Amino acid sequence: MIELDQTHDPKLTSWVASANGHADFPIQNLPFGIFSPGGATPRAGIAIGDAILDLRAILDGGLLSGAAERAAKAARGNDLNGLLALGAGPRRALRQALSNLLAEASSLRPRVEPLLYKASDCLLHLPARIGDYTDFYVGIHHATAVGKLFRPDNPLLPNYKYVPIGYHGRASSVLPSGIAIQRPLGQSKRPEAETPTFGPSARLDYELELGVWVGPGNDLGTPIGISAAGDQIAGLCLLNDWSARDIQAWEYQPLGPFLAKSFATTVSPWIITAEALAPFRIAQPPRPEGDPAPLAYLNDAGDQAQGAFDIELEVLLTTAELRSQELAAHSLARSNARHMYWTVAQMLAHHSSNGCNLRPGDLIGTGTISGPGQDACGSLLEASQGGKNPIRLETGEERRFLEDGDEVILKGHCRREGFVSIGFGVCRAVIRPAL
Amino acid sequence: MIELDQTHDPKLTSWVASANGHADFPIQNLPFGIFSPGGATPRAGIAIGDAILDLRAILDGGLLSGAAERAAKAARGNDLNGLLALGAGPRRALRQALSNLLAEASSLRPRVEPLLYKASDCLLHLPARIGDYTDFYVGIHHATAVGKLFRPDNPLLPNYKYVPIGYHGRASSVLPSGIAIQRPLGQSKRPEAETPTFGPSARLDYELELGVWVGPGNDLGTPIGISAAGDQIAGLCLLNDWSARDIQAWEYQPLGPFLAKSFATTVSPWIITAEALAPFRIAQPPRPEGDPAPLAYLNDAGDQAQGAFDIELEVLLTTAELRSQELAAHSLARSNARHMYWTVAQMLAHHSSNGCNLRPGDLIGTGTISGPGQDACGSLLEASQGGKNPIRLETGEERRFLEDGDEVILKGHCRREGFVSIGFGVCRAVIRPAL
Repeated sequence: MIELDQTHDPKLTSWVASANGHADFPIQNLPFGIFSPGGATPRAGIAIGDAILDLRAILDGGLLSGAAERAAKAARGNDLNGLLALGAGPRRALRQALSNLLAEASSLRPRVEPLLYKASDCLLHLPARIGDYTDFYVGIHHATAVGKLFRPDNPLLPNYKYVPIGYHGRASSVLPSGIAIQRPLGQSKRPEAETPTFGPSARLDYELELGVWVGPGNDLGTPIGISAAGDQIAGLCLLNDWSARDIQAWEYQPLGPFLAKSFATTVSPWIITAEALAPFRIAQPPRPEGDPAPLAYLNDAGDQAQGAFDIELEVLLTTAELRSQELAAHSLARSNARHMYWTVAQMLAHHSSNGCNLRPGDLIGTGTISGPGQDACGSLLEASQGGKNPIRLETGEERRFLEDGDEVILKGHCRREGFVSIGFGVCRAVIRPAL
Repeated sequence: MIELDQTHDPKLTSWVASANGHADFPIQNLPFGIFSPGGATPRAGIAIGDAILDLRAILDGGLLSGAAERAAKAARGNDLNGLLALGAGPRRALRQALSNLLAEASSLRPRVEPLLYKASDCLLHLPARIGDYTDFYVGIHHATAVGKLFRPDNPLLPNYKYVPIGYHGRASSVLPSGIAIQRPLGQSKRPEAETPTFGPSARLDYELELGVWVGPGNDLGTPIGISAAGDQIAGLCLLNDWSARDIQAWEYQPLGPFLAKSFATTVSPWIITAEALAPFRIAQPPRPEGDPAPLAYLNDAGDQAQGAFDIELEVLLTTAELRSQELAAHSLARSNARHMYWTVAQMLAHHSSNGCNLRPGDLIGTGTISGPGQDACGSLLEASQGGKNPIRLETGEERRFLEDGDEVILKGHCRREGFVSIGFGVCRAVIRPAL
């Protein structure tokens, strides 16, 4: 089902000069998003190099036809839900048409070039109205490391290798990159205290995740089979599932995380499409010796063969002090999407296995994608081992958890021999003091 | 803040004859909903006796003015989110205007009467687009009874009396009353089994809850103070939080219920407004001796004085066999909304205390509202004590959990000396076999 076509050709270049060699948005990427040029109304756009192409203007200019035109029409409003609902076929047709328009050889450059905006002049919004946001827990190194903090001898619960564990998240507080995060207030109880207190979280953390944009979804009562589930991946983004560990520890029994997470979730604003990611699909890493095989409803040879993603992930931290000294952001962790125990298709098949309906524009978080080493921790909870071992920065500052003024930056890139690298753009937000 | 006005006058009657003495929808109720007359498009309506008044037609007929007209205009589409966003003032003005139009004494009856539909000819939809659905756990008898099944000596966790425990639910699968529920498939593991299996849930259950429709909501980062939180209650409905206990037991650690709940949630379709419920507000029952006082952000004298609701709740069960013998529905439980440990205002203040934004049309479940006795169990898990003691029906049938063809019916009524009783209408759904 994962096809390569001429849009992936590594020899393809664009007349948008900044696209060629661009770390994130060469012509082989062409992600979709919603942007406002200047103070204008939000509309669909495509990132190309340092520019954004106005999809509505392309449509209105009569530059599209057939399936590509129909797909662009579905994206005519101020969100991409309609486009996501159409599924892969129309999205692929639109991608091909846009690739043609932006390619070096395009004769239509004179009509397209006026429809480009400098990305730095634009505001980026959420790409879709999120119906439901679900967060999974498929980073096994994260689950193991966090489990160890509570249960040193038995870090993974018995269900972990059978059930792609997930929970419902809060859709209203999902934010596009760049919007500051206010430190949450909440209840917490120190181990030595008799009673809880209410105040600013003292253990604010990030979580390095990928987000999955769902399309076209399924009807209630009609599960998505594992072999069809991959087709529900419209695209991916970076996702920072901000977490208040002290609130979480006190509230989460017995119904799971709630206010520890619902104050904010930050996503990178571009939908990196399944088509753009096609060259970077890899086989699911083999399960460790002794692990059970997935139950039949989660087991598919095609998914095992190419259901995983090879995406390099990085977390960077800047502090007010680092910025005032004009020092580079501190790299907190490097990881890779291959460290997921379950594939996205397995998550989606599981999610709908009880008949639950997924809708176009639903957002699925993977859970924290830590790697196997101490330099691959997808959260400070892991990196500081529950706050015991602080991270030292170049300024001499220490971090157990995030402080006001800190900015967390997530990045993601795909590289493969013989292909042009693509990236996710940035997912960043600074911490503002509590009310 | 809770005011009684002439719409509550017990002497008020309607020229809609079926409204007078109606168990649910006398002229003192006037709930809002979204309905389709015949096969026509969904629109806002008001239940009055056995009829539904077409609010759009009332508006288009020029029968409203001022704040009432503005409120009706906000309800002009196919959901009530716009009306909910306006808050109590415009809603109250519209209620007063509708009460005037429907009152026995109204001179406008000739213009209003043609805009009524027989309720039995109409389809009822969800009243709002649900942005997020959150489910709480404030029924202390339920929490205690369920806790006892797992921890006989220590049924309530240490956080229960400090934290209004809640979790995010699934918005996409919330359904209006009357839509059949398909028994979910899922993973479960029998205690004696080594490994889990995948198949139809064998422990399907209902949960007797109230739902709260939120309006007007708050901005991200701006908590709703406890003294203002009551004003966020646009209205209430009945809510059945269907639960697959076997799936839940296996999946819920460590992140809470997920697929055990997300296959369906049924609500009664009418928003019983805060205004209609005003006569039935009561003081919050005193906390048992020795319980901690609520932390300051949850503590408000006004809320204590009239933050609770006196709503009689009942759960009825019919089975295929009961229906074929034309026997009455079996009353499974009677309870009352006064058995909530936290008020709705406390839930909303807590929910937003970390800055989380609530939006008009958000749905908040209270959690299962069991009463103190064995005849007041809000779920079969409690009534059958984890499946050990079956319920006996008049047919000789037994129920530990729900079987295919069973129908669960929730009802709610408010009664108070000196006032006309009002009801919630019905929240019902039948269980369809698994796929």
